[in-house]
Amino acid sequence: MNDSLQKELTSRKSGICLYGFAPPKQATPSDELEAIVAQQLVRLGALPVDGLIVYDIQDETDRVSTPRPFPFLPTLNPEIYAHEHLGPLAVPKIVYRCVNRDTPDGFVRWLENVNRAAAPRIAVLVGAPSNRSHFGLPLTDAYALARQYAPNLLLGGIAIAERHARRLDEHERILAKTEQGCRFFVTQAVYDVTSTKSLLSDYAIAIHDKGGVPLPLILTFSPCGSLKTLSFMKWLGVAFPRWLENELRFATDPLAKSLELCEHIFAEVWDYARDKGIPLGVNVESVSIRKVEIEASVELLQLLRGRIERSER
Amino acid sequence: MNDSLQKELTSRKSGICLYGFAPPKQATPSDELEAIVAQQLVRLGALPVDGLIVYDIQDETDRVSTPRPFPFLPTLNPEIYAHEHLGPLAVPKIVYRCVNRDTPDGFVRWLENVNRAAAPRIAVLVGAPSNRSHFGLPLTDAYALARQYAPNLLLGGIAIAERHARRLDEHERILAKTEQGCRFFVTQAVYDVTSTKSLLSDYAIAIHDKGGVPLPLILTFSPCGSLKTLSFMKWLGVAFPRWLENELRFATDPLAKSLELCEHIFAEVWDYARDKGIPLGVNVESVSIRKVEIEASVELLQLLRGRIERSER
Repeated sequence: MNDSLQKELTSRKSGICLYGFAPPKQATPSDELEAIVAQQLVRLGALPVDGLIVYDIQDETDRVSTPRPFPFLPTLNPEIYAHEHLGPLAVPKIVYRCVNRDTPDGFVRWLENVNRAAAPRIAVLVGAPSNRSHFGLPLTDAYALARQYAPNLLLGGIAIAERHARRLDEHERILAKTEQGCRFFVTQAVYDVTSTKSLLSDYAIAIHDKGGVPLPLILTFSPCGSLKTLSFMKWLGVAFPRWLENELRFATDPLAKSLELCEHIFAEVWDYARDKGIPLGVNVESVSIRKVEIEASVELLQLLRGRIERSER
Repeated sequence: MNDSLQKELTSRKSGICLYGFAPPKQATPSDELEAIVAQQLVRLGALPVDGLIVYDIQDETDRVSTPRPFPFLPTLNPEIYAHEHLGPLAVPKIVYRCVNRDTPDGFVRWLENVNRAAAPRIAVLVGAPSNRSHFGLPLTDAYALARQYAPNLLLGGIAIAERHARRLDEHERILAKTEQGCRFFVTQAVYDVTSTKSLLSDYAIAIHDKGGVPLPLILTFSPCGSLKTLSFMKWLGVAFPRWLENELRFATDPLAKSLELCEHIFAEVWDYARDKGIPLGVNVESVSIRKVEIEASVELLQLLRGRIERSER
């Protein structure tokens, strides 16, 4: 794995393009897994990206009271999937790790292993999905252990604009996570331009007040091609303004409409972030496993990458 | 008074431009009042508008618990101010009337008087400022009396996008008020593009479902040139997205920034409404009595009128 993405992130480069996905299910039979890996090596290797994000999927059912629209099925360990199965891919990888499933000992073993890797690694540590789930390793402890046992590991954090809309303190969480070692941040899928701009605005003001430099904020975009995908994203905590949800619900082609809306949202936030001096990047994903939605996510990646290239020319 | 505005409203014309203001304070000495009237005849007569809105200012202190940033001072009767003091102005007028200060008898006398006017009149009936103020004439009774005693009176209603953001039912209120005789709607100052688009979206869907035609929606725009004006507008119930409030708070020239933001918001909502087939109009006002903010409101009116003309060319 080359260290180009590390350099781009730590030099706070604007316009970083990533593609995010979850590893295959744990229950995948080994011959099937082999076929999936072979296919992904080709498909992901062809993507015009600066890096891949491999998610660590949690069963978040204690976060919300409504039933999960899709059943939760445990996936393969993202670290192993990224660096072993997809090891032949030269493209840099960012691995998510949900630390609320870790014990301190287990987490330290993981850190020591990561720190010994031939090329420096990049990880995003994820805390408990809700305040109600107080088990496992607290995020703050995980950051402290990471600084101690894996100084070579480049750390990123999660930033959630929807949380900012409710509590107006997400920029403070970003600053606190920066103190704890994070060097970039990734959002969840952006469909609400207002809360995203509000988070950028408060972050820019805070950085201006305390001195220092704004870190790269990677905005996640995710196509939404069906009412089922829409309800799943809402379940995951993604906010949809009423009018935008109506547009998707009543579109003859919701998938195409969602791409159009995502591109429009990106353009507005991109201009705003540029005005505020915040380096923005994108991470495109598909929360659905339907072929058309996965293909649309690649199309969206190309659309957004094209916009970035045109604006930087 | 000519009936051009009646015709524009009832033919559901897009792009109607209005200018809104409150009558002078009741306590104004008569010689001062004469000077104000003389000045307003010139100033308002020169405005490039299709009509004027004369507000009926209420003491809304039971609507919110925080103190009113500016003291409430009763103003002259808007009906008398519009049609007697400003009688020499040929430009059509829309008069607001807060019916919660009316008894049925008093309101009927007003209606009979209005109905006898030489030229047909236009009025917007305003209900109680909060659910807590249950005195005076209910709005539904007022509409019924208006249909009975003043069939010549063209009625408009209030539409509040901020209410839609909270309860998602403002389009139903618009439909109910339409049933009760309203032929156009006026919003409060628009600074939140999302709730405004959401209201338009739900209104368009409801009209599509039930059949019928969308009525003109007049969006109010109001410059905001100081933190005091900002806090007053917030007190009045106008929603400011966090990022936009930051822009105003930290602008070197908040008044110029507010005009830029208003124009941007208008352009976005105008395109959206056009796409949905909803006839949109604008009403520009200044909630502040500072000279610079009043002058800015006239500049804003010209900016928005210019945009409308360019888009209709």
